[in-house]
Amino acid sequence: LDYQHVQVPFEITLWIMLASLAKIGFHLYNKLPSVVPESCLLIFVGLIMGGIIYGLNDRSPPVMDSDIFFLYLLPPIVLDAGYFMPSRPFFENIGTILLYAVVGTIWNVFGIGFSLYGICQVKAFRLQDVSLLHNLLFGSLIAAVDPVAVLAVFEEIHVNEKLHILVFGESLLNDAVTVVLYKLFRSFCEMPTIKSMDVFAGVGKFFVVGLGGVLVGLSFGFTAAFTTRFTKDIRVIEPLFVFLYSYLSYLTAEMFHLSGIVAIISCAMGMKRYVEANISLKSHTTVKYFMKMWSSVSDTLIFIFLGVSTIGENHEWNWPYICFTVIFCLIWRALGVLVLTFFVNRFHVNTITSKDQFIIAYGGLRGAICFSLVFLLPDFHRKKLFIAATTVVILFTVFVQGMTIRPLVDLLAVKRKRESAPTVGEQIHIRFLDHLLAGIEDISGHWGQYYWKDKLEYFNSKYLQKILLREYDQPKSSIVLLYEKLERKHAIELAQAGQLGHGPAHPSFLCSAFLCSNSDRTVRTDQKLEDTLNPDVLDNMQEILARNLYRIRRTGPAYNRHTLPGDSEPTEQAKEILILRHKNL
Amino acid sequence: LDYQHVQVPFEITLWIMLASLAKIGFHLYNKLPSVVPESCLLIFVGLIMGGIIYGLNDRSPPVMDSDIFFLYLLPPIVLDAGYFMPSRPFFENIGTILLYAVVGTIWNVFGIGFSLYGICQVKAFRLQDVSLLHNLLFGSLIAAVDPVAVLAVFEEIHVNEKLHILVFGESLLNDAVTVVLYKLFRSFCEMPTIKSMDVFAGVGKFFVVGLGGVLVGLSFGFTAAFTTRFTKDIRVIEPLFVFLYSYLSYLTAEMFHLSGIVAIISCAMGMKRYVEANISLKSHTTVKYFMKMWSSVSDTLIFIFLGVSTIGENHEWNWPYICFTVIFCLIWRALGVLVLTFFVNRFHVNTITSKDQFIIAYGGLRGAICFSLVFLLPDFHRKKLFIAATTVVILFTVFVQGMTIRPLVDLLAVKRKRESAPTVGEQIHIRFLDHLLAGIEDISGHWGQYYWKDKLEYFNSKYLQKILLREYDQPKSSIVLLYEKLERKHAIELAQAGQLGHGPAHPSFLCSAFLCSNSDRTVRTDQKLEDTLNPDVLDNMQEILARNLYRIRRTGPAYNRHTLPGDSEPTEQAKEILILRHKNL
Repeated sequence: LDYQHVQVPFEITLWIMLASLAKIGFHLYNKLPSVVPESCLLIFVGLIMGGIIYGLNDRSPPVMDSDIFFLYLLPPIVLDAGYFMPSRPFFENIGTILLYAVVGTIWNVFGIGFSLYGICQVKAFRLQDVSLLHNLLFGSLIAAVDPVAVLAVFEEIHVNEKLHILVFGESLLNDAVTVVLYKLFRSFCEMPTIKSMDVFAGVGKFFVVGLGGVLVGLSFGFTAAFTTRFTKDIRVIEPLFVFLYSYLSYLTAEMFHLSGIVAIISCAMGMKRYVEANISLKSHTTVKYFMKMWSSVSDTLIFIFLGVSTIGENHEWNWPYICFTVIFCLIWRALGVLVLTFFVNRFHVNTITSKDQFIIAYGGLRGAICFSLVFLLPDFHRKKLFIAATTVVILFTVFVQGMTIRPLVDLLAVKRKRESAPTVGEQIHIRFLDHLLAGIEDISGHWGQYYWKDKLEYFNSKYLQKILLREYDQPKSSIVLLYEKLERKHAIELAQAGQLGHGPAHPSFLCSAFLCSNSDRTVRTDQKLEDTLNPDVLDNMQEILARNLYRIRRTGPAYNRHTLPGDSEPTEQAKEILILRHKNL
Repeated sequence: LDYQHVQVPFEITLWIMLASLAKIGFHLYNKLPSVVPESCLLIFVGLIMGGIIYGLNDRSPPVMDSDIFFLYLLPPIVLDAGYFMPSRPFFENIGTILLYAVVGTIWNVFGIGFSLYGICQVKAFRLQDVSLLHNLLFGSLIAAVDPVAVLAVFEEIHVNEKLHILVFGESLLNDAVTVVLYKLFRSFCEMPTIKSMDVFAGVGKFFVVGLGGVLVGLSFGFTAAFTTRFTKDIRVIEPLFVFLYSYLSYLTAEMFHLSGIVAIISCAMGMKRYVEANISLKSHTTVKYFMKMWSSVSDTLIFIFLGVSTIGENHEWNWPYICFTVIFCLIWRALGVLVLTFFVNRFHVNTITSKDQFIIAYGGLRGAICFSLVFLLPDFHRKKLFIAATTVVILFTVFVQGMTIRPLVDLLAVKRKRESAPTVGEQIHIRFLDHLLAGIEDISGHWGQYYWKDKLEYFNSKYLQKILLREYDQPKSSIVLLYEKLERKHAIELAQAGQLGHGPAHPSFLCSAFLCSNSDRTVRTDQKLEDTLNPDVLDNMQEILARNLYRIRRTGPAYNRHTLPGDSEPTEQAKEILILRHKNL
C-alpha cells in the first residue's frame, strides 16, 4: 500500500465525491430542499464530518485554507455568476447596485466598527484591549455580503428579477470595497502612526481596485473572444479558452492587488456574446454545463468546509461581543438599506417598495469570504474572538435568515419572478422600445442609459465585432438566434417523439408524401406535390415561403438603428430563392 | 505585485495556455499537420522553450516531474482512450493484443536487456560497469510501447481498424507487464542476492497486477453507473461522476501497486453503456467533449514537456550504447512481431498480412512513460547514460518513425479505415450474424468468442441492467439508439437549414399544408390532407406508418436471443396506434 504517493489527488477527489453524493442525497428526498436551503444542509454535513474528525483524532479538524478558497473555490462560482448574469436588469440597475455596494458597505463597516468599539468600552464586558482599529478591521470583514451565500439562497426563492439583481449585484461588487478597506485597516494595524495621507491614498484605492479589475477583466475577455476566432479547425479545445482566460484575469487581478471578483465578472460579461458567436454549439453546451457543474461543486465544498472548520478549538467565546456583532450587523444593514433606498427612490420612477427593501436588508447573508478573511488576519491576542464572532454571524445568517427568508417572501407576497421566458414577440417589442427611447433621449439631449446603450451597440457593431467575430459578414440579432434555438429545440422534440415524418435511413413513400422539406429531395417532392395540390395553392405557398421564412432568417441587421431598412440585401436574396425554386420546378 | 501568492495556479494556467495556443497555431497553417505529426511539432516547441529557459537561467530547465505525469497528465489520456475504445474490434482481437502485450513485451525486455549486456562486454566501449540487472532494468523501461505516442501518430494516419486496435491495444495493456518487470528489476538491483522464489513471485505478480487492475476498474465503473441512477433531479453534476470514479479507480490501483492504466480502461469500458443510458443528452455531450478536451491538452503538455526536459545537462553521451539501444529496439520488436504473428496466423482465418506486420513493428513508438520511468530510477552512476539513451530512443521513434510512417502507409497501400460509418442496415446484419454464430457455436459445443459474448449479454440484460439502469423497463437496443441519434441529427440539420417547415412561433398556412406531423396538430392536419390527397393514398400511408415507423422504435428487445420474437407487444402496440389514428380522423 503506497498511500503517500497518491494522497493529494486522492483526498481532493474524495472530498469532491462526498460533496456530490451529499447533493444527490438531498435531492433524493424531495421535500427536504423545499424547506431547508441546501447551504444549511451542507454546513450540517460539514459539522458532522468535523465532529467525526475531531472525535477520532482528538484535535481540531483542518480549517479551510484561505488560499485554497480564494484561488480555487471562489473563481468558478464568480465566473458562473458573471457568465450567466442577466445583463439587462444588471445594467438597468447599475447605479443602485453601485450605491449599495460602495456607500452601503462603507456605511456598514464604519457603523459596525464604531458601535462594537462602543461596546468594548463597557468595563463589565472585559473587552477594553480591543482597539478601535481592530474593531474597524473586524467590521471591514464582517460587513461584506457574500455572493456564494446569497446565490445559494436566492436561487431557490425565485424573487423578481430586479430584487434578485440588487442583492446579488451588491454582493459581487462590494468585493472591491471590502478588499480595499480590509487591506487598509490591516496595514494601519501594523503601522506605528497613521498619517492623513494614508487615509486619502486609501480612498483613491477604491477606484484603482475597482476600475483596475474591470480593465483587467475586459482585456482578458476580449483576448479570449479574439482567440476563439481561430479555433474553427480544432473545436475540441474551444471551451478551454473560456476557462483559461477568465481564470487568468482573476489571478492577474489578485496579483496586482486589484479586485479579482470584479475582474472575472467583467471578463465573463465582456467575452460572452463574442465567444458564443464564435464557438460551436456543442462547445457552448460544454462551456455552460461545465461552468454550472464546477460552480455547483465549489459551492458545495465551500459550505461543507465551513461546517468542518467550525468544529474545533479556534474559538474564544465572549457573549456580549458576539451577540452585539449579530445585532449590529442586522441593524446597520437595515438602516443602510432604508437610507440609501430613500435617495434612490427620489430619482427613479420605478421605485423599490418597502417589501423589497425588507428582503434586501434581510438577504444580506455572510459566508465563506468573511470566514477566509478572518483566518488571514495577522496573529494577535483576540483573533480567536473574531473567529468565533464571524462563525456565529455566518451560521446565524445562513441558518436563521436563510431558512426564514422563503416563508417571509411568501408571507409578504413579494413579487415573484415570472415563470415563463418572454416570447419572441415581447422581445421584439422591448427592443423596439429601447430604440425609441434612445431616439427620444438623443433628441432631448439627455444622456440616459438608453443613449449610452445605443452608443455602445454602435461601437460594438462598428469596431468590436469586426475584430472579435469570425464571420462578421453574418451578424445575427439575438432574436434571430433565439428563433433558431427554439426551432432547433422543436426539431429535437419532433425527432424524439418520432414525428419527424421520415428517418434518414428510410426514404420510403412516407417521406415524399408527408414531409418533403429536405433540400436534396426538393425536386422530387415538388413534383409529387404538384400532382396532389392545385397550382394556386402552390403559388401561395411559395410566396409565403419567400416572404416569411427566408426573411426572418435574414433580418438581423435591420434591428440595428444604424443600418437603413431599405438595404437591398434581403429582397434580393428573396428573389434569388424564388428564381432558384422556379428553376427546380 | 504579489506573484508568490498566485504562482502555482498562474504558471499551470500559462502552460496550458501555451499548449492550447501552440495547437491553434499549427492548425492555422493547414499544410503543416498533414506532413509533420503534431507530436513532433510540440516536442519542437518544447525544445525551443527549453532552450530559451536554459539560455536565460544558464541552468537546466526543470524536467517533467514523474508524479505530475503519472498522477495528472496520463489519466485523462487513458480515460479518453478507454471511453472511446471501439469495443467490437478490441474484443475480437483481445487474444492477439494480449499476446503482443504480454509475451511481446517480455520478449523485448529480455532481448534488449541481454543484447545490451553483450555490448557492454566489449572493452573498447568502456561500459563494463553496467551490470546485467541494470541492463534488464533499462530494457524493461525502454521496451514498452507508449499509448500517448501511438495515439498521436495513429489517429492521423487512419489505418484500418484492426491494425489500429492491435498497436493501440498492445500499448495500453503492456502497462501491467512493464510495471511488474520494472519494479521487479528495480528491487532486484537493491537486493544483495536474488532467490529463485523472488523470480516466481514476480511471474505471479503479472496476473495480480493485470487482473487486479481490471477488478478495481470494473468495480468503480459499476459504482459509477449505479450512482448515475439517482442523478435525475440534479443533472448538472452528472458528468462529474464519470470523471471522479474513473480517476479514483486509477488512483486506487496505483495505491495498491496494480496497473492504473488497466484499471481506468476497465472502468471506462465498464461504465460507458450504463452511464450513457442514465445521463441526459447534454450531460453526455459534456462528458465526451470534456474528455476529448482534457486528453488533448494533457497530450499537448506531455509532448511540450518532453521537449523542454530534453534540454539540459542530465545526459551522459556514449555513442555505442545509445546507437545499439536504438538498433536493438527496432530489431527485437520486428523479430517479436514476426514470430508472434506467425503463431497468431496459424489459428486465425483472418490473418495479419505482412504489410500489417511491418506497420505494427514500425509503429512501436516510445514516449513519455519511458521518460518518466527513467527519471524514477534510483540514483546510480550510469543513470545519466540511461536518460540520454531513453531520450534518443523517444526522439528517434517520434520524429523518424512518426514522420515516415504516413508515407510508408501510402507506399505499401496498407488497407485504410473506411471513411463512412456502417449504415443501420449493415449493423443489423452484423448483429444478426453474431446471433447466428453464437447459435452455431452453442450447438457445436465450441466455446468461442460469440458464445461468451452472448452469455455476457444475457447476464447483462438479466442482472446488471436491472441494477445499474434507471429506467429498466425500456431497454433500448444500440441500433434503436443509433436510429434515434441519426434522426435527431437530421432534425437539427433541417432546423438549421430552415427547412423544418414551420417554426414554433409561426403556425402559419405552411405548417398545415406542408409538414404537419406535430402531434397536437395531427387532427387538423389530417383533415386538411384528406381534402387534398385521395383516400387510398392516405390508407396506404397509415399502413406504412403503423408497420414501419412504430415498429422500428419498439423492436429493441427482439434482438435479444433470449426473448422470443413472438412476444405480443409490438403488434398490439401497432394496433393501438392504428385505432388511435382512426379515432382522430
